[in-house]
Amino acid sequence: MQNSVGIVETKYYTIEDKIQFESGIEFGPITVAYETYGQLNETKDNAILVIHALTGDAHAAGKHSIDDKKSGWWDTLIGPDKAFDTNKYFVICSNILGGCSGTTGPSSINPKTNKPYGTTFPVFTIEDTVKVMKKLLDNLEIKSLYSVAGGSMGGMQAMQFPITYPDYVKSTILIATTSRLSPQAIAFNAIGRNSIISDPDWNNGNYYDKEEKPNRGLSNARMIGHVTYLCEEAMYNKFGRKLQDKNHYDFNFDIDFQVESYLQHQGQIFVDRFDANSYLYITKAVDYFDLEDKYGSLNNAFSKTNAKFLVMSFDSDWLFPSSQSKEIVNTLMNLDKDVSYCEIKSPCGHDAFLLEYDVQDKIIKSFLNDHIKGEDNE
Amino acid sequence: MQNSVGIVETKYYTIEDKIQFESGIEFGPITVAYETYGQLNETKDNAILVIHALTGDAHAAGKHSIDDKKSGWWDTLIGPDKAFDTNKYFVICSNILGGCSGTTGPSSINPKTNKPYGTTFPVFTIEDTVKVMKKLLDNLEIKSLYSVAGGSMGGMQAMQFPITYPDYVKSTILIATTSRLSPQAIAFNAIGRNSIISDPDWNNGNYYDKEEKPNRGLSNARMIGHVTYLCEEAMYNKFGRKLQDKNHYDFNFDIDFQVESYLQHQGQIFVDRFDANSYLYITKAVDYFDLEDKYGSLNNAFSKTNAKFLVMSFDSDWLFPSSQSKEIVNTLMNLDKDVSYCEIKSPCGHDAFLLEYDVQDKIIKSFLNDHIKGEDNE
Repeated sequence: MQNSVGIVETKYYTIEDKIQFESGIEFGPITVAYETYGQLNETKDNAILVIHALTGDAHAAGKHSIDDKKSGWWDTLIGPDKAFDTNKYFVICSNILGGCSGTTGPSSINPKTNKPYGTTFPVFTIEDTVKVMKKLLDNLEIKSLYSVAGGSMGGMQAMQFPITYPDYVKSTILIATTSRLSPQAIAFNAIGRNSIISDPDWNNGNYYDKEEKPNRGLSNARMIGHVTYLCEEAMYNKFGRKLQDKNHYDFNFDIDFQVESYLQHQGQIFVDRFDANSYLYITKAVDYFDLEDKYGSLNNAFSKTNAKFLVMSFDSDWLFPSSQSKEIVNTLMNLDKDVSYCEIKSPCGHDAFLLEYDVQDKIIKSFLNDHIKGEDNE
Repeated sequence: MQNSVGIVETKYYTIEDKIQFESGIEFGPITVAYETYGQLNETKDNAILVIHALTGDAHAAGKHSIDDKKSGWWDTLIGPDKAFDTNKYFVICSNILGGCSGTTGPSSINPKTNKPYGTTFPVFTIEDTVKVMKKLLDNLEIKSLYSVAGGSMGGMQAMQFPITYPDYVKSTILIATTSRLSPQAIAFNAIGRNSIISDPDWNNGNYYDKEEKPNRGLSNARMIGHVTYLCEEAMYNKFGRKLQDKNHYDFNFDIDFQVESYLQHQGQIFVDRFDANSYLYITKAVDYFDLEDKYGSLNNAFSKTNAKFLVMSFDSDWLFPSSQSKEIVNTLMNLDKDVSYCEIKSPCGHDAFLLEYDVQDKIIKSFLNDHIKGEDNE
């Protein structure tokens, strides 16, 4: 496993104290699943928090066992001599609040009832998820974040971090993200949620002890999402109008086109790894994220931040288009903040943040290095 | 009712002979629901066929009664002194084969079993629907079509007409359409179908005598479709991130945003007027439409046509983008066919073909008039 962080394990930390959520509710205890790569230095200031996207987990790099077929979701960028260089940095990744991969979420057991929370789990916001991560970092005795980085929803959290904790974050890396969803993006999330909620097996969120889970609804939600992660060019390159295992139309309602087959497959494998209720909660947090509305303006939102910003977007991303990144960059420039921006050409759509690692590797490396140089001069 | 065709009624014609479908199946009898506006002239060559889009019907203009609140779906363009001027032309519109508004479709009674066809209805193609329309025109003793016009799926049929019947069609008007769907457009249709098929109330298409219909699946399919008919700009103008009847987030899974409310409403009213099986069959026909594949190339497809072409597209239409119209236009130009093209600026997305009637009115009027002049010179 060259340049790999090697065999890693997921760890757990339980925040016993209740946390005040943005909705007003106080909630706890919360267990956080997380992984770390590299070593925290003596001054405890070489930590980089990487944050996963909508359906990711704490396993960002390395493998869980030698037989593990897949490495963590950002293994291409995390490891010795990689962008997030584990020879230099102590890298942390945790599963999001409300998730279903180790961190407390709707599928977790409510200690008061000994039953899964289901829809009694409180609706939370992106800032709530950031507060949970901060508790984890405090527990790890990290004095300040050298950087915080994330793509898509992870980018929203990485954006919120220096706003909520302006003196704690030295730099932030925002990839393929936005300060608020477009109405179109809200629409796709809402249709996905509607698909789950209208599945009779959803049963108001009480399905954990049932044989049938709301897999049809969840699978359909994932299929909708997947179309928005690709772009026209990616879909032409990947599928075009090619038929699946046939030369002629079937003239029935079986799958005819490769693109149908691909999406159905994506939907089917998703239900094995993801919880329908988590999908509802997390997409709601994403829909609610709106820095303009929350702080009165983007200007207000970023005015007190002390971090250096690196913003990257992809020209074929129509879910979180470059125009949204440029709005953030322009605001930061007007505020005289230290910001670098790169629009990357890619035929991969929104998914590019997980695929175009070569160019991201170079840009992030350079940003983090400059960052060090900058510090030397200070 | 100024400039209206007035009170109209839907008529029915039954094709008793079986029609050979593209799948190889022979199918009949087929009843066709249709309406006509204006008068057929003595030489029976002033007929214009207008063709509806995915979920339209035969009621294109006028009202069914004085109390009728809504006029036909293209009333803005059909009537005395309008684009399709009923003082001059005999305008015909029929409900599509497989539909659920009068023409034989999966919800119709199979005379052999006295039960609805359901999924025993044969899968058909756009060319099959054109053949059915031609039988209707023959029955009306129309010797040639002065023009055939349609938007979206109606445009596909209007495109197929002069290919299948090159000497019958004098001109064709293709609006916001394509010679084949992109993989992205297939994906959205496939997810819509999947949503219906995975609704337990779909019951393999046998739900006509059941109390519960697959309304959840059909409603979700419609919501997906609706997002593709709008565009980012239209959605920002129409909804932005405005909340529905509230000033703050609800922190639950009820509707928060106006765009959610709008889409849910569109889904809910759709199930009252449309049949889930019809949705499956018609979207499949649309997915199958592929002139390049069917004829070897677009060039081959159009090579034998004798019609004059008017092609219109809308710059904000991302479902059937202008690039697809331009491909058709370029092919026709290379073939030295008589073709006019107009890309219309509009903030309305694909839906523009039903909304931007002022500009379409002018362009179509001018095209049909030039057409007459052209004939005078012949």
